[in-house]
Amino acid sequence: MVHQSNIRAAFQGERGAYSETAVRTFFSDPLPVPCRHFLDVFQLVQNRSVDCGVLPFENALTGSIHENFDLLLQFPEITILGEVKIRIEHSLLGLADAQLSDIRQVLSHPQGLLQCEAFLDSHGDWERIPHYDTAGSVADIVKSKDISKGAIANSLAAEIYGARVLAEGIETNRENYTRFFVIGRSDEPRPEWTKPLGLAADKGSIVFSTRDKPGALLEAMQALAARQLNLQKIESRPIHGKPWTYMFYLDFDLPANRDLLTEALEELAFHSENVRVLGVYRRG
Amino acid sequence: MVHQSNIRAAFQGERGAYSETAVRTFFSDPLPVPCRHFLDVFQLVQNRSVDCGVLPFENALTGSIHENFDLLLQFPEITILGEVKIRIEHSLLGLADAQLSDIRQVLSHPQGLLQCEAFLDSHGDWERIPHYDTAGSVADIVKSKDISKGAIANSLAAEIYGARVLAEGIETNRENYTRFFVIGRSDEPRPEWTKPLGLAADKGSIVFSTRDKPGALLEAMQALAARQLNLQKIESRPIHGKPWTYMFYLDFDLPANRDLLTEALEELAFHSENVRVLGVYRRG
Repeated sequence: MVHQSNIRAAFQGERGAYSETAVRTFFSDPLPVPCRHFLDVFQLVQNRSVDCGVLPFENALTGSIHENFDLLLQFPEITILGEVKIRIEHSLLGLADAQLSDIRQVLSHPQGLLQCEAFLDSHGDWERIPHYDTAGSVADIVKSKDISKGAIANSLAAEIYGARVLAEGIETNRENYTRFFVIGRSDEPRPEWTKPLGLAADKGSIVFSTRDKPGALLEAMQALAARQLNLQKIESRPIHGKPWTYMFYLDFDLPANRDLLTEALEELAFHSENVRVLGVYRRG
Repeated sequence: MVHQSNIRAAFQGERGAYSETAVRTFFSDPLPVPCRHFLDVFQLVQNRSVDCGVLPFENALTGSIHENFDLLLQFPEITILGEVKIRIEHSLLGLADAQLSDIRQVLSHPQGLLQCEAFLDSHGDWERIPHYDTAGSVADIVKSKDISKGAIANSLAAEIYGARVLAEGIETNRENYTRFFVIGRSDEPRPEWTKPLGLAADKGSIVFSTRDKPGALLEAMQALAARQLNLQKIESRPIHGKPWTYMFYLDFDLPANRDLLTEALEELAFHSENVRVLGVYRRG
């Protein structure tokens, strides 16, 4: 938790979405700004309409969220300032005066229904209704005033919409985490909250493409490894208009000696193209 | 094109889907077997109900098709026997007696509509109707007998459903390719069609996870590169239940001297876990 209040943080989803939990995990007293699309979050940050954006980049079960990797490339003035991981804990929510025994129908995003399959199977008589959004399904059951309707969502949504938590921790797989990046403009002074407890960045992310020759990716990775920039994750995304060529996104440990990063980038320039540092930040 | 006829090849989609084009590009006179889900294709191959399956693994615009990478892991007896790439060429299809000027509504899979946006924009008065499938939208307009309805799909679907091609090459980006793998059972004798024109395999695919220590992926890649197994593609997929750990899928050039592959695999066993050769095959 970073202790700075009143940060305007844009996120994608309805109020009470898991992304809002990420915002509230990273900042102590934020002003969350809900957005319809991931692109809207990037644009609000770009226009300086908010202080930062908080966006999911990876889920431990389903993998990378490619849309946000692709969007990072389209916004060269945006940089990664922080990282935060949250565990996805699903709850069953009902109306404020509902009991578990009142429930007959359960609404949620298809992924929410799927991730609570074991719990739903133990209530085989409930009808499962796919909805566009987890938090949105809570908003809608509250609006319906129908005591037989439940929603699978974040318990934070109970507070926001005046619903009641009827069952907690109903997800089948408890090892379900989502990793978020906090993004901001690279030309703004680096805010104090990027150094939680005064600690400096210890992780970095870069993106590059390789020249079309054998071993180019390997040489690029060696340039990093030789300078203690240990690889944490690699992700490839296709380059449009150049079939079977890729942009590589790498996350690595950042040593305290920043000259090592500078040296690695200098060598990287020989082996690769379009090298861009996406950000250096404190690991979440 | 591989010259062997009467191969029973399962694919995902309706008759006339792009996957059927891939089947007909790879085999000269195949017996295509349409399946509803990717999983069905794997199961038919597993049960020996078909000779092989033809499945998309990568699109040059949208990236890897993760579901099929994940399914490969679930079927250890299935191996990659071939590779085929096709260009995605969209056509506008109408009823057999329709003219372009009759069209008022266009049906297709949302991706099909999106990939022909420039063409659709030049006919601004047409209504765009998202459908579950490209080939399925051709089947449905033919069934409707409504001359004002068009469908965006593969021109192959015109033949199959008795529709008419009203416009060809209407995709905005012509650099749209999809890469398919031909899969079969690893315990069957290797069929003759895996050696087109008598040519031996020149490409391979492996999957492995790395031990949890810095540089493990790099060492694994070096083990391959030192033996001329040049990396063509790398893809990472999360391991369920072990957050932030990955399975790595690598495609590489396969040298004529197969001892090099054996040596590389022996060294790989030191740096990585769960090493599996997914297949060796002739590049498509």
